[in-house]
Amino acid sequence: MNGLSEFFFPSSVAVIGVSADTSAFGTLYLGALLKFGFKGKLYPVNRRGGSVLDLPVYSSLAGIPGDVDLAVISVPGRAVVGALEECLRKGIKTAIVLSAGFGETDIEGRKLEEELAKVVAKGIRVIGPNCHGVYCPRSGLTLVPGSNFPRESGPVALISQSGGFAEMIVLQSRGIGIRYSKVVSYGNALDVGESDLLEFLSEDEDTKIVMAYVEGVKDGRRFLEVVRRTSRVKPVLIWKAGLTDMGRRAAGSHTGSLAGSKFLWETFFAQSGAVEIGSTDDLIDTAIAFLNLPASIGRRVALVTGSGGAGVIGSDACERLKLSMPTLSGEAQHRISSLLPSIGTSVRNPVDLATPRPRTSVLRGVLEAVAGSDEIDVIILGRMFLSAKGPELILGLTNRPEEHSDDLLEVPLAIRNQFGKPVVIVLSEEVTDREMIDFERDRRSVRDYYLSHGIPVYPTLERAVSALAHVVRYRERFG
Amino acid sequence: MNGLSEFFFPSSVAVIGVSADTSAFGTLYLGALLKFGFKGKLYPVNRRGGSVLDLPVYSSLAGIPGDVDLAVISVPGRAVVGALEECLRKGIKTAIVLSAGFGETDIEGRKLEEELAKVVAKGIRVIGPNCHGVYCPRSGLTLVPGSNFPRESGPVALISQSGGFAEMIVLQSRGIGIRYSKVVSYGNALDVGESDLLEFLSEDEDTKIVMAYVEGVKDGRRFLEVVRRTSRVKPVLIWKAGLTDMGRRAAGSHTGSLAGSKFLWETFFAQSGAVEIGSTDDLIDTAIAFLNLPASIGRRVALVTGSGGAGVIGSDACERLKLSMPTLSGEAQHRISSLLPSIGTSVRNPVDLATPRPRTSVLRGVLEAVAGSDEIDVIILGRMFLSAKGPELILGLTNRPEEHSDDLLEVPLAIRNQFGKPVVIVLSEEVTDREMIDFERDRRSVRDYYLSHGIPVYPTLERAVSALAHVVRYRERFG
Repeated sequence: MNGLSEFFFPSSVAVIGVSADTSAFGTLYLGALLKFGFKGKLYPVNRRGGSVLDLPVYSSLAGIPGDVDLAVISVPGRAVVGALEECLRKGIKTAIVLSAGFGETDIEGRKLEEELAKVVAKGIRVIGPNCHGVYCPRSGLTLVPGSNFPRESGPVALISQSGGFAEMIVLQSRGIGIRYSKVVSYGNALDVGESDLLEFLSEDEDTKIVMAYVEGVKDGRRFLEVVRRTSRVKPVLIWKAGLTDMGRRAAGSHTGSLAGSKFLWETFFAQSGAVEIGSTDDLIDTAIAFLNLPASIGRRVALVTGSGGAGVIGSDACERLKLSMPTLSGEAQHRISSLLPSIGTSVRNPVDLATPRPRTSVLRGVLEAVAGSDEIDVIILGRMFLSAKGPELILGLTNRPEEHSDDLLEVPLAIRNQFGKPVVIVLSEEVTDREMIDFERDRRSVRDYYLSHGIPVYPTLERAVSALAHVVRYRERFG
Repeated sequence: MNGLSEFFFPSSVAVIGVSADTSAFGTLYLGALLKFGFKGKLYPVNRRGGSVLDLPVYSSLAGIPGDVDLAVISVPGRAVVGALEECLRKGIKTAIVLSAGFGETDIEGRKLEEELAKVVAKGIRVIGPNCHGVYCPRSGLTLVPGSNFPRESGPVALISQSGGFAEMIVLQSRGIGIRYSKVVSYGNALDVGESDLLEFLSEDEDTKIVMAYVEGVKDGRRFLEVVRRTSRVKPVLIWKAGLTDMGRRAAGSHTGSLAGSKFLWETFFAQSGAVEIGSTDDLIDTAIAFLNLPASIGRRVALVTGSGGAGVIGSDACERLKLSMPTLSGEAQHRISSLLPSIGTSVRNPVDLATPRPRTSVLRGVLEAVAGSDEIDVIILGRMFLSAKGPELILGLTNRPEEHSDDLLEVPLAIRNQFGKPVVIVLSEEVTDREMIDFERDRRSVRDYYLSHGIPVYPTLERAVSALAHVVRYRERFG
């Protein structure tokens, strides 16, 4: 470990720069920690003293009775140097600087950032400036704002230059069961940067998957080395923003980053073994795939759909992302043929059942034939309504008497368990009406049911194939 | 018009091949028409007579007392030729063949399709075989299944080789207010194909935008000519599936299509002026953009966001799709600077407010400065919570007393009206928890509010930029 653990597990935190104004950043941060339930000691600090959020305010660090593990600084940019020096005098070794107004602004801001660097050199580690802090459920730390983040810890870590994105990604993850060990919004990366954080996370036993939203990197060579090393032990998902001229310019005024050229980053992704991410959705989709698919996954896909069109676009997506779709064996085709009407369906792969609402026995028989085929590694199930309510809400179809819809829901799970072959499910967000919110509620219940049993679920075929392809490529390289 | 109007406005329809089995395709189709409320005469036909769904069944077409405008045929593949010949004898000029089992299957199916072609040559127009029919709300026709499709007519037409996709796209469109003049699922395109339908729709006054999901095209030269001509008068959005080897193979067994090479299609898109679509989402997103953005739209974007990260990825997306993001004038920057804190924000373009929940007066002032700038054609608003509930549900933030959240919601609309400059809004689907379905309901209400006032709304920045870019490119070419 490279001495970063105090950032994640402090027993005492001083919040420097709280004020009576409850909308001030420092006060919001303090409030977030209190509401989230940080268990350690909390010392609000403000020259003027008084009290805030029912806590006594210390007028200086020196006045705090005990040791302080971590200082969180939210004072105007010009006052940050002084605050850090006060930290040094108090013997504080670790600080998060929330304050902005440094390298991301102008020449004066850059000078200010250089001054900060000099203080850092005297012996204090700094995350930030221009960041939203650290979220670590095990220790009760959270970002600002982030008081309603999940309390449970999980196997994913996220480092993000953007505070807003860190928050957005944790929120989007929450509903689909992705839980975090550590999330760091690291802003301008004056001292502790992407490479330090990755190095730390590569050895962190609580972390099985690392995600990164990166605008710029200070030391490209070191970053390449660290990502390469980390990728050997756990997947590193990197979303590199600012790859265009306009994006680069925006990154400069957001986190003061030098974003680097597109060509350079192509080389980086080829050499480092990092998983290259293209959007928020892609980041979360890929995490779901890594969390739920076995390391032994292969690239030979069987696509089973409720519509021929889905078979065509799913096949396009598989080929574009270099997954293979072997023709099923004669025996499997024969078995599937015996279950389906001979017209309007197809049996080679993609398998088209020609109805989004097959009978339970038909779906079971088809999936048995597919899962039992040696030439198939993974099954994608697309455009099918697996729950009771979907067909009624969407198609106006009610169940036939001989059907029990819960049985249909169980089929993919039973097949996965029986054959030990991974199944990926596409549940479309097909009904977007405000009045038909019940359909979406139902869809989310089905999604949660499968996710809780280790089956990845996606809203579109394209997203399912893309996430699967990321995992397959990584596993082929690193196992 | 090329004689296709009977397909859309028949006063009498014979459904050939209904049966007592209510899950049979013909019976489902008849049931869909009844439930959807087709107003014309309906004649179920089955050799055995009797009655179905409370209608008397005719044992032959000859027995039907009056004229029949349209026959819909759902009998086994081998019996279709006979049914079509019976249509000829009855003087029916127009038929939809729902039955499958033709060119999409095997050599026998292809022979059967050739026999159909011979009957067609005797003087009957056919849509299909292997299709789901026609949806035309003005006349009360619908697809199978499609009894719960919207009853209102609208300015968009869709032709789709895949019946399942036609249905899916209409359903997805429904919640976001896209309404259809005509939807045709045309399957194997034995007689009436993509070119005939486009030709018809190019002259159809009810249709302002045409969408097409195409797997293969029979006469490429004619298709290019028709698309080129149609694009001059209305946008033609084409989603070409089956562009990979695997997709091509799947298309062959889905609609018997020859999908054509990727290179050929690249040339087609460059020459025809069609808008090239890449997915269901892209199709619907682009329709929303065409329906809501003025023809005078330009490519100079101002991006106003509640997070710096959104500014970076939005800039990347704009540059990738060749939209420009001019630096705002000194005057506009000065005005924006006076409204925002000097740190943590940025004012050049992208404009980063550094909070997803700005004060109403701040958002108004910033948007006035941006919309008043000569160098800007369109404003994209990203990562902002514009409704009352969002911030509370997501961030745990309650409104400050001086704020009235409904005012915030009104700001983008007021700016669009005052300056006559289009605004595009990104409302993220940020909270995906099953238990927090209220957030999604609220989000949909806000979305519907803006859409009902002609402001396009998207779930992600990337999708917003992509849809906007489609419209800008089309308008630059055809106005």
